[in-house]
Amino acid sequence: MPTKKSTKSSFLRSDCPIANTLDLVGDKWSLLVVRDLLHGKRTYGEVLDSPERIPSNILAERLRRLEAAGLVARAAYQEHPVRYSYTLTDKGLALGKILLALVEWGKRYIPGTRTYRESASLSPHQSRLARKRRVPKRTG
Amino acid sequence: MPTKKSTKSSFLRSDCPIANTLDLVGDKWSLLVVRDLLHGKRTYGEVLDSPERIPSNILAERLRRLEAAGLVARAAYQEHPVRYSYTLTDKGLALGKILLALVEWGKRYIPGTRTYRESASLSPHQSRLARKRRVPKRTG
Repeated sequence: MPTKKSTKSSFLRSDCPIANTLDLVGDKWSLLVVRDLLHGKRTYGEVLDSPERIPSNILAERLRRLEAAGLVARAAYQEHPVRYSYTLTDKGLALGKILLALVEWGKRYIPGTRTYRESASLSPHQSRLARKRRVPKRTG
Repeated sequence: MPTKKSTKSSFLRSDCPIANTLDLVGDKWSLLVVRDLLHGKRTYGEVLDSPERIPSNILAERLRRLEAAGLVARAAYQEHPVRYSYTLTDKGLALGKILLALVEWGKRYIPGTRTYRESASLSPHQSRLARKRRVPKRTG
């Protein structure tokens, strides 16, 4: 079995499902990569191009980790030079529910956040207007 | 307004609700502290005592950050020496849905993980037995 350590106490910190899920995706970037793949991005360059501007070395490392954890599958879509596409496995797709919970919390408690869908439905011009309309609360 | 920067582009990375929620709790420890407070732990020492053994300096820093973000409220419950208790605000309690999604994913995809409730319902003896019963898959 290629998993780390034996089964008996194979957990890094505890047997808590939250702790173990966080050991896989508990960082600022992994779930954003998962978000992008859920939205249909497929290549390294496409994910790199997201508004958060993930640093290239972090993206490479996260894709490796997500692949090693069985959350992402990698396939060559071109030879000479070889280029890879990335897709979510079923296990990776199931993270969608966690993303949804993060979206709902963020939308409710962090004013001004907008989902990918909301952003995509606005043209760049509308998007600028929407930003202008989000006027800071006047005090007095 | 005591928030960082002005409203217009007050986001660290993007206006995505996932990115912004991860900027608050996207690390290996914050949501475990929230889990403990949801389970009724109230003091620094109680959280420190959890099976993941959060390092003391990280716990202090995370509690400060969670309080600054309005997720945790701190109150002195004793003077000389002063001691504080920590509770979740409504905003912090609302993270429960994210925790639930993490629990569900972890339970489904990381074999052997057990929720706090499941662990608590077993005596130490039963718990040892349960661990023994989780025999690794025989190959052949």
